[in-house]
Amino acid sequence: MALLERINLKAKTDKNTGFGTNSSSYGGRFINKNGTANIEKRGMHVLHRISWYHTMIDMSTWKFMGIVLSFYVGINFVFAAIYYGIGLEYLNGIEPSDSHWVQFGQAYFFSAQTFTTVGYGHISPSGFLASSLSAAEALIGLLSFAIATGLFFGRFSKPTAFLKFSHNALIAPYGEGTALMIRTAPFKNTNFSDAEAKMTLGMSIEENGIMTNKFYALDLELEKVNSLSLSWTLVHPITEESPLFKFNKADFSTVNGEILVFIKTFDDMFSNTVAIRTSYTFEEVIYGAKFNPMYARSNDNSKTVLHLDKLNKFEEVIL
Amino acid sequence: MALLERINLKAKTDKNTGFGTNSSSYGGRFINKNGTANIEKRGMHVLHRISWYHTMIDMSTWKFMGIVLSFYVGINFVFAAIYYGIGLEYLNGIEPSDSHWVQFGQAYFFSAQTFTTVGYGHISPSGFLASSLSAAEALIGLLSFAIATGLFFGRFSKPTAFLKFSHNALIAPYGEGTALMIRTAPFKNTNFSDAEAKMTLGMSIEENGIMTNKFYALDLELEKVNSLSLSWTLVHPITEESPLFKFNKADFSTVNGEILVFIKTFDDMFSNTVAIRTSYTFEEVIYGAKFNPMYARSNDNSKTVLHLDKLNKFEEVIL
Amino acid sequence: MALLERINLKAKTDKNTGFGTNSSSYGGRFINKNGTANIEKRGMHVLHRISWYHTMIDMSTWKFMGIVLSFYVGINFVFAAIYYGIGLEYLNGIEPSDSHWVQFGQAYFFSAQTFTTVGYGHISPSGFLASSLSAAEALIGLLSFAIATGLFFGRFSKPTAFLKFSHNALIAPYGEGTALMIRTAPFKNTNFSDAEAKMTLGMSIEENGIMTNKFYALDLELEKVNSLSLSWTLVHPITEESPLFKFNKADFSTVNGEILVFIKTFDDMFSNTVAIRTSYTFEEVIYGAKFNPMYARSNDNSKTVLHLDKLNKFEEVIL
Amino acid sequence: MALLERINLKAKTDKNTGFGTNSSSYGGRFINKNGTANIEKRGMHVLHRISWYHTMIDMSTWKFMGIVLSFYVGINFVFAAIYYGIGLEYLNGIEPSDSHWVQFGQAYFFSAQTFTTVGYGHISPSGFLASSLSAAEALIGLLSFAIATGLFFGRFSKPTAFLKFSHNALIAPYGEGTALMIRTAPFKNTNFSDAEAKMTLGMSIEENGIMTNKFYALDLELEKVNSLSLSWTLVHPITEESPLFKFNKADFSTVNGEILVFIKTFDDMFSNTVAIRTSYTFEEVIYGAKFNPMYARSNDNSKTVLHLDKLNKFEEVIL
Repeated sequence: MALLERINLKAKTDKNTGFGTNSSSYGGRFINKNGTANIEKRGMHVLHRISWYHTMIDMSTWKFMGIVLSFYVGINFVFAAIYYGIGLEYLNGIEPSDSHWVQFGQAYFFSAQTFTTVGYGHISPSGFLASSLSAAEALIGLLSFAIATGLFFGRFSKPTAFLKFSHNALIAPYGEGTALMIRTAPFKNTNFSDAEAKMTLGMSIEENGIMTNKFYALDLELEKVNSLSLSWTLVHPITEESPLFKFNKADFSTVNGEILVFIKTFDDMFSNTVAIRTSYTFEEVIYGAKFNPMYARSNDNSKTVLHLDKLNKFEEVIL
Repeated sequence: MALLERINLKAKTDKNTGFGTNSSSYGGRFINKNGTANIEKRGMHVLHRISWYHTMIDMSTWKFMGIVLSFYVGINFVFAAIYYGIGLEYLNGIEPSDSHWVQFGQAYFFSAQTFTTVGYGHISPSGFLASSLSAAEALIGLLSFAIATGLFFGRFSKPTAFLKFSHNALIAPYGEGTALMIRTAPFKNTNFSDAEAKMTLGMSIEENGIMTNKFYALDLELEKVNSLSLSWTLVHPITEESPLFKFNKADFSTVNGEILVFIKTFDDMFSNTVAIRTSYTFEEVIYGAKFNPMYARSNDNSKTVLHLDKLNKFEEVIL
Repeated sequence: MALLERINLKAKTDKNTGFGTNSSSYGGRFINKNGTANIEKRGMHVLHRISWYHTMIDMSTWKFMGIVLSFYVGINFVFAAIYYGIGLEYLNGIEPSDSHWVQFGQAYFFSAQTFTTVGYGHISPSGFLASSLSAAEALIGLLSFAIATGLFFGRFSKPTAFLKFSHNALIAPYGEGTALMIRTAPFKNTNFSDAEAKMTLGMSIEENGIMTNKFYALDLELEKVNSLSLSWTLVHPITEESPLFKFNKADFSTVNGEILVFIKTFDDMFSNTVAIRTSYTFEEVIYGAKFNPMYARSNDNSKTVLHLDKLNKFEEVIL
Repeated sequence: MALLERINLKAKTDKNTGFGTNSSSYGGRFINKNGTANIEKRGMHVLHRISWYHTMIDMSTWKFMGIVLSFYVGINFVFAAIYYGIGLEYLNGIEPSDSHWVQFGQAYFFSAQTFTTVGYGHISPSGFLASSLSAAEALIGLLSFAIATGLFFGRFSKPTAFLKFSHNALIAPYGEGTALMIRTAPFKNTNFSDAEAKMTLGMSIEENGIMTNKFYALDLELEKVNSLSLSWTLVHPITEESPLFKFNKADFSTVNGEILVFIKTFDDMFSNTVAIRTSYTFEEVIYGAKFNPMYARSNDNSKTVLHLDKLNKFEEVIL
């Protein structure tokens, strides 16, 4: 039986994924593991194509701090060079008898003291040019810290869905038949309410010699939960309505398929809606496995303990 | 008649509470009185498990100010020690004839003047190391205040549901029968619109020797109000459809049950949706009581007065 | 025909206004003209009952600037007094030969220079107490400006519904019959989309000798508009379904009634939902009048001109 | 056949556009190309009519920086003039033997050093007036930077729909017939979910000698997409239900019509709903053309490449 015949014709196709059906236009997976679309944008200058704010907000703390530090070191170097060009005799307090390197160093630290508005005053500008430059530098310094304040606030106040997903999707026993299961769990001190999940199957299939992208909505046993406090297993029962109804273990290794997952929930702590996305290629699907429980009561029976390290723990079963 | 028989089989079970049904995994109450889920997360490093921003935002003002002050005192101590290590002869203005303690004190205050960018200048750095250190300290100082600015803004601008709940839930007379009643009231100078309430009953019941968690949606007489300005009494009429239909006074002390309450509303002042949660264990249910009115017209008949201290005032009645 | 008989029994009552029906608890109007509920809260300390952030955000610019200035003048006075108490000999640069007033003034300005972190340094602290105090003052100063930054940002970024309402509600001719009309218009450079209006009638009526509050939902000809760019006239057609069906001109002066209006819309500029509320007592209803048009094409026929000063312009008509 | 007869009487009119039907009140297009309503507001003072915050947020970076710089240069000029008026002998450190211009310059830079709180201290105020003025200036300086911080943060954190539209709308072949097509594409590193589009047709038509504005909702083949990652072509099929059913090429040049487009979507990066609007006059409609594909697989077949410069690329076709 050819693959095309094993795909359930009754299955609900999903026309509004935002991806087209013309497979020849596509390469690789639709959605990256981290939830971003696997798309490269061209034909527009990078400065217009990139939201530098989002880039600064989403980068790692170390990288962000590195950029801040480099900017600080660099801009002081630039200003020190200009003071040096104007003439260090316009910076009172710099000893003319010192070596050029020492004098440049003093101009550098004068710049830092101006940029941060410390302004000890043991070195101070005189003359129109040096005074103007230091006035400009103090302005630039304060505006830089204004921007830094915004970036810091943006970084830690940005509503983010603190949800982790299991690395694998499982084809697990479910009632009389089987189901596709994915597990997610909140991992921070937040409260989620009104969580809603969507699952979509995307496949590249050869039909009459032409590769086509097919998208199917995968119905979930439970699409919405009022509150998401413990782990949540998204269960797509593989019934006659499912596009995966006739799939066997081999299909998951031969077909070029991908399961797209999208969760939207209200975070009580941010008081905001947050959204998260991920995807599982068929290579990440384990055929014949079930998740181990990841929570249990505490020893003193006073609370429930959620073991986040067990999120992707499963055991193999024969289907 | 055994407890299991007294539970209404017609009652609507609630499958999407986000809590599982396997009672053996649970300990204590589901939701704490303050609305957080009674769950402990393990298996992930605390730094990844905790949103330090949320922690700083939610702590009390005194604790927050204590942390700010400790940080300020501590970081200046650290910098003073480094200046001391570099050699205080590189800080011009410190009197070499003073005692070590006095000199360290002067380095400490120089550090504070640099960190806050006051920079009086009666003490000033010289030499590469001390100058670099003070330049770094001024940067760290400004960035710290940038973060503090964000935290302060986050603390007071965080959308919060300024609603208080009655401490007790009541089983009160209602029409021909009885109803479960909980009272809530807005307590700040805000306007709520489109408020929506959900009530859920959770119970651990022994069924065939196995403890199971059962969840039931409790229908409310009024689930939504356009505007929430005065007190709002959430009324669950105990009709034939209610899971509590056959419950008697004794059941509330013997059964391990909990009433979960969730309110979501739009706050006109924050222009944001806010959510709040609380729970009542059966020990907090008063069987046979009704709330006293908590508002009345003002003496001059020009406005309504809401007495917030009467939120949990009730009188006992015989059912 | 008594008033009670003139109230339309077929009219849709509105049970979820958030106001009770027990009229004896009420005084005055339900909603103030500015949209706040006419309620006074008691029985809780003012510091818990008031959101100081909202209070600072909503006050007028002049009052806000006055508070900022008073705080600045006051806190420097306090610190100057403490420096004076410690002994001005610990502030180097203050001339001991000056009069006490001049010396206090110098301590005052030293405090200001520390609080704002200007720190010229012509006056500088010495000794443990004065140095500690100035270190504390610089911290307090920076934290105060951190809070001020948050308040400024909160003040101008707060999503607000920039809508004005006509001062009067009109009973105007409408098709074959009449309609209750209220006019609103956006007055700032913002774009509203998905605007939604609700109108409610509240009346205190004597029924069998008891005063009761009755609330009725007033159906609008158009409850939602996709875009709100020009003026919007809210029209409640007074049909057989309307509670006002049999009302005559005299009723509006004798009955104690109030029309509550609530509009919720998405502001494209704030990218946020904003809500606004107002009310019209029956004294503000003009029986027999229609609004004059408030927009026209510009002279060069290139754009539409909206005359905001005509929002409440109407002409009397005989019904 | 007259135009009026060619307009489809079966077409769905759209009553809730927020624009009236009285054409004589209108001038020019309804919505500008950039999405703002083509309306001028009068009859209210500009300071009340304009949200200066929105104005500052929406202006270009260069204009914004220009205003900041002008403010800085200007306010220091004002303060320098006042210091000059008070008498420069109250600013210690200014050389009385210098020329008036040089002295004024020194007062100017002293002002800048105070405003930015650098406060080197080589010039320092003495006497009550100069000290008060510098204390006030430092306060004003810090508050100005507090406001600037808010404006910067507002500018880069403002939720904006990073969507570009094709410059032209096309009447393209579609199945057996034709369709009106508009193309949009996200151009920044953001993720959109739950995108929703609305299309409205507005026309000024002479009916019985009176110009009237007619609005029609244009049904879209796909009104909502779960995810908007690649380009999205909004397709209005010109069926018997469409108001454009009998329109021919000439009508698009003779009729005064406009197609209004509105898109609302959830931006995962901002975690906020964003909205965008544009419009196409009939002059911008190309009769007989179809869009060229704007995405393809990358050379190494690992990702999809979206060519943003091809957004408005189309080829003419004969209908």
